[in-house]
Amino acid sequence: GTRRRTGLADMASATAAAGAGASPVRLRPFKRVAVVGGTHGNETTGVYALRRFQKHPELLARDGIDVEYCLANPKAVREVRRFVDDDLNRQYSMARLRDDSLESYESVRAKLIEQRFGPKDSDRPHADFLVDMHTTTSRMGITMIFESQGVDPAALYVAKEVRRMLAGRTSAPVFILFADLERDGIPHTPSIARSGVAIEVGPVAQGLLRSDACEWMEQAALAVMDAIARLNTGEATASEAEAVPVFQNSRVKVPCPAGEDGSPLAVFHERLQDGDYRPLRKGDPIFRGLDGEVIEYDGRLGDTVFPVFVNEAAYYLPESGLGFALCHHATLPLPPIVTAEDGAARLSLPVPPADDAEAVAAAIEASDPWEAAEAAAATA
Amino acid sequence: GTRRRTGLADMASATAAAGAGASPVRLRPFKRVAVVGGTHGNETTGVYALRRFQKHPELLARDGIDVEYCLANPKAVREVRRFVDDDLNRQYSMARLRDDSLESYESVRAKLIEQRFGPKDSDRPHADFLVDMHTTTSRMGITMIFESQGVDPAALYVAKEVRRMLAGRTSAPVFILFADLERDGIPHTPSIARSGVAIEVGPVAQGLLRSDACEWMEQAALAVMDAIARLNTGEATASEAEAVPVFQNSRVKVPCPAGEDGSPLAVFHERLQDGDYRPLRKGDPIFRGLDGEVIEYDGRLGDTVFPVFVNEAAYYLPESGLGFALCHHATLPLPPIVTAEDGAARLSLPVPPADDAEAVAAAIEASDPWEAAEAAAATA
Repeated sequence: GTRRRTGLADMASATAAAGAGASPVRLRPFKRVAVVGGTHGNETTGVYALRRFQKHPELLARDGIDVEYCLANPKAVREVRRFVDDDLNRQYSMARLRDDSLESYESVRAKLIEQRFGPKDSDRPHADFLVDMHTTTSRMGITMIFESQGVDPAALYVAKEVRRMLAGRTSAPVFILFADLERDGIPHTPSIARSGVAIEVGPVAQGLLRSDACEWMEQAALAVMDAIARLNTGEATASEAEAVPVFQNSRVKVPCPAGEDGSPLAVFHERLQDGDYRPLRKGDPIFRGLDGEVIEYDGRLGDTVFPVFVNEAAYYLPESGLGFALCHHATLPLPPIVTAEDGAARLSLPVPPADDAEAVAAAIEASDPWEAAEAAAATA
Repeated sequence: GTRRRTGLADMASATAAAGAGASPVRLRPFKRVAVVGGTHGNETTGVYALRRFQKHPELLARDGIDVEYCLANPKAVREVRRFVDDDLNRQYSMARLRDDSLESYESVRAKLIEQRFGPKDSDRPHADFLVDMHTTTSRMGITMIFESQGVDPAALYVAKEVRRMLAGRTSAPVFILFADLERDGIPHTPSIARSGVAIEVGPVAQGLLRSDACEWMEQAALAVMDAIARLNTGEATASEAEAVPVFQNSRVKVPCPAGEDGSPLAVFHERLQDGDYRPLRKGDPIFRGLDGEVIEYDGRLGDTVFPVFVNEAAYYLPESGLGFALCHHATLPLPPIVTAEDGAARLSLPVPPADDAEAVAAAIEASDPWEAAEAAAATA
């Protein structure tokens, strides 16, 4: 074929060189960190991590940082269900937080949690940084999710530091998943703090604990704290600009065919199953229907895309948003960061255009990130 | 070591030779087969299989057999939960079926299903054979479960035929899991018919469909129908006695340490995770606690045993029975079977003593059944 064989690292270097000499950005330090588990009651791994961190506070303790713990949805945790009335992680838009007519258990919980760690519409919310611990049934390894209006350099820094620190230390690869969203509308927990990330580990089934997923979660949470502590040293976090390869969630979703009652009428095709972050090309099979017919990707987001949340159990539920999601790949410039009391509350950096999808696809196909992570962890 | 290197097949041959010349047993034919899915509402694979079989009745159609389909717990299926009030698959003991004071949704469903396919305490229940389709989060491949008071030769025949027919055809190995239980007390669905099996496929998370698990379920269900059709030919099903290696569920369970509210205080140790049907020896690690401490197998059922339902999500719930289960291994003699209208409704053959556990363990450690199944399926 004529595909370019540029590796992802080469692409990132080229972008970094283009941004070299970027002047540092100034941010206020991150002194209060909220650590949240059990936003979804059947994502048991985050609940267990929270329990372990509370019993062993030395795990997340870092100089100059106050950690506050929150079990977000205790009723759903007790019932080992994603939610009781409605998805808690869809309640944090400004519109819903300020809508007094909403009275579901989860909309009330969201308001209480926002009162504790927000206000969301403040430059001085109680929590400077919020970490929300999730799991997925999809093979997404350790995915650091951050969503911001433009690029939030603090969240990007933390995510890329987690990836750097865990390289060779966990049997799962670390991915960064970014979405560029209008801030008021973001429905997810980290959006109520000044900055934040969701840690998403998988594959792991709902309602149980796997030792591998627990290890991934704990290592990722510890690395988040290390990264925040480094941000807070007040010095520039890098001597020159970096460029960080990420997957950018388009929020375009592809639902599984379903009947009027919501029951699935097709199964993820075996070639897409476990294929998170692998190239998906127009014409590739995505589902097999009840009659054996194969349903192909229709190219709706481009000829080559990268799927995430492939066969996530929650996305069979309309309350949580049906279907798997399609991503582009982008290389985000990260300027050096200085923290200072008179720094900005938040910054919004421009989002560059997506990378050439076929070049990224070729690089991924040349080196499987799971095999690389397992090999590196085995020799470490 | 001094472990014997007798293979499981050798052990079975020796037992068969001992029983050679056994005279055939006579059973009434199996003309009405009940195919049940959705006994647990979040075990989506069986629900999907049921839908596919109903849309394509040719899949299970066999000469002289009437197939009846049953979606057992429609409310739990709609809510994608294991159960609404109580575990449906714990309701089928005679005591509970005849207790008019029980009014939970599932106890009522059980009575309706027993009215349709039973009576359980009859020699002429409506269903001659019942197949209940389940999934597990444990790595149990395709497990054919049958429970009977003594050995039910019809169920044993069907289970071993499924194993024979699927050899080299599925990427998962087939295991037979037997329990010797007082018949009236058996709480599970197949016990309401004259004979029956549960098909248990895994690993698969609750609330989703995986193509591999769907394929395993469909292939197993088709093979069950083929086996029943062969039984019904009315001729002896074997020219000589066979001996069938099975795992025998002791019903001794080992629960995960938990707090007063039921929340887990430990994680399955990585050496036990995915270790279903692998030898577990006294002193082997089974859990790692919240403080990092390792909990070992205490030898409660013997120095060498075989675990099943390792990290099954449902067994974090007290309603379903906490903990993983310990098995012995046994080699069950299977006499030739003749079917005739004047044959017996059921037979109860004696259960032989368990096999030498260390000999079985050595055979399993010498040849991994998953690798063997995948290799055979790849070359087929």
